[in-house]
Amino acid sequence: MESEHRSGAASARRGTPAHPRRADAERNIAAILAAATSCFARNPNASMTEIAAAAGVGRVTLYGHFSSREALLSELMERALSEVATVLETTGLDEGPADETLRTFIRSSWQLLDRNLRMLHAARRALPAEAVHDHHVGILSAMDRLITRGRQEGVFRDDLPAHWLVSTVYALVQAAGDQVEAGRFTSEEALDALDATLASALRRA
Amino acid sequence: MESEHRSGAASARRGTPAHPRRADAERNIAAILAAATSCFARNPNASMTEIAAAAGVGRVTLYGHFSSREALLSELMERALSEVATVLETTGLDEGPADETLRTFIRSSWQLLDRNLRMLHAARRALPAEAVHDHHVGILSAMDRLITRGRQEGVFRDDLPAHWLVSTVYALVQAAGDQVEAGRFTSEEALDALDATLASALRRA
Repeated sequence: MESEHRSGAASARRGTPAHPRRADAERNIAAILAAATSCFARNPNASMTEIAAAAGVGRVTLYGHFSSREALLSELMERALSEVATVLETTGLDEGPADETLRTFIRSSWQLLDRNLRMLHAARRALPAEAVHDHHVGILSAMDRLITRGRQEGVFRDDLPAHWLVSTVYALVQAAGDQVEAGRFTSEEALDALDATLASALRRA
Repeated sequence: MESEHRSGAASARRGTPAHPRRADAERNIAAILAAATSCFARNPNASMTEIAAAAGVGRVTLYGHFSSREALLSELMERALSEVATVLETTGLDEGPADETLRTFIRSSWQLLDRNLRMLHAARRALPAEAVHDHHVGILSAMDRLITRGRQEGVFRDDLPAHWLVSTVYALVQAAGDQVEAGRFTSEEALDALDATLASALRRA
């Protein structure tokens, strides 16, 4: 017991973690996620072999942490969308006119999406439709709340169900991203077009 | 020579085609496409094994005609979209007010899309993005022509590029299909919502 304590204290003094294996694993996971993010940003078809090489780890280590390309894309999608969810929370969904709040939210989350367009595209293709939906549940339900408030306040249309207006936002955000990926819009042009189109599609007549 | 002729004439009299192998192949292809259409209509994840069984052919025959699940989905997508292209041509794209023509086109092609929602969903996931785009080129360029005419006539907005308005139509048609697939809309509700949303999204302010 005593020697164990002492060795623990010694390693703490040297700044070495008490669980070097776990620290290694965390470093590898961080390297894999960073490498995967940049591989998918260049090429949505990036393979596990390419990602392992870019992360500087072996395939066995890569598969030890992420059992498949799908598992890795799922983790990346989860991280990217939870950043968007954080933006949603800090946007103050329940404050200000709902249409202005939606615009602010779209503008501030666009930067995050823009950075991850190809990865999100790859994830939408690789993961089952239900898994993709599950990753979006937080964002979609916050959007539903904002749109419902806007309908009550008379700024958003109420001739169509709220779930459809949420789908409209989601579909047009994706379409704007696709136009950037295809090189037909710069990121700013896409955001302006999205903004103008959503304004007229959602506005009460 | 004579005996060949005679045998040809005899088979013609019996109603047997001169190239029985080709006729067999055509029957098999027709059976495979019909079976694949109904398998994918039930389940977008349908496998080649299921499709071979439903078509009453062996896997070797199936793979002899379609080298992969992707090749089969590509053929089905091509056929479904060429039906839509035919509707586009018979809609008379250059006649009538452009916004009314677009509504007519959306309404008449919706029935075709509605029947093939799950297959198209499976094809969009299985095929490379460029292949999916190539299958849609005819429809998208006809839509571009109609939207460009509507802008010249002053019914569609011209503050945003035509290619974006085409993407908006395409994205919202897909979103409407997804709502039907998810059971949140009946086919008619989806079409009505699509119609109302496109009207306000495309209209000149």
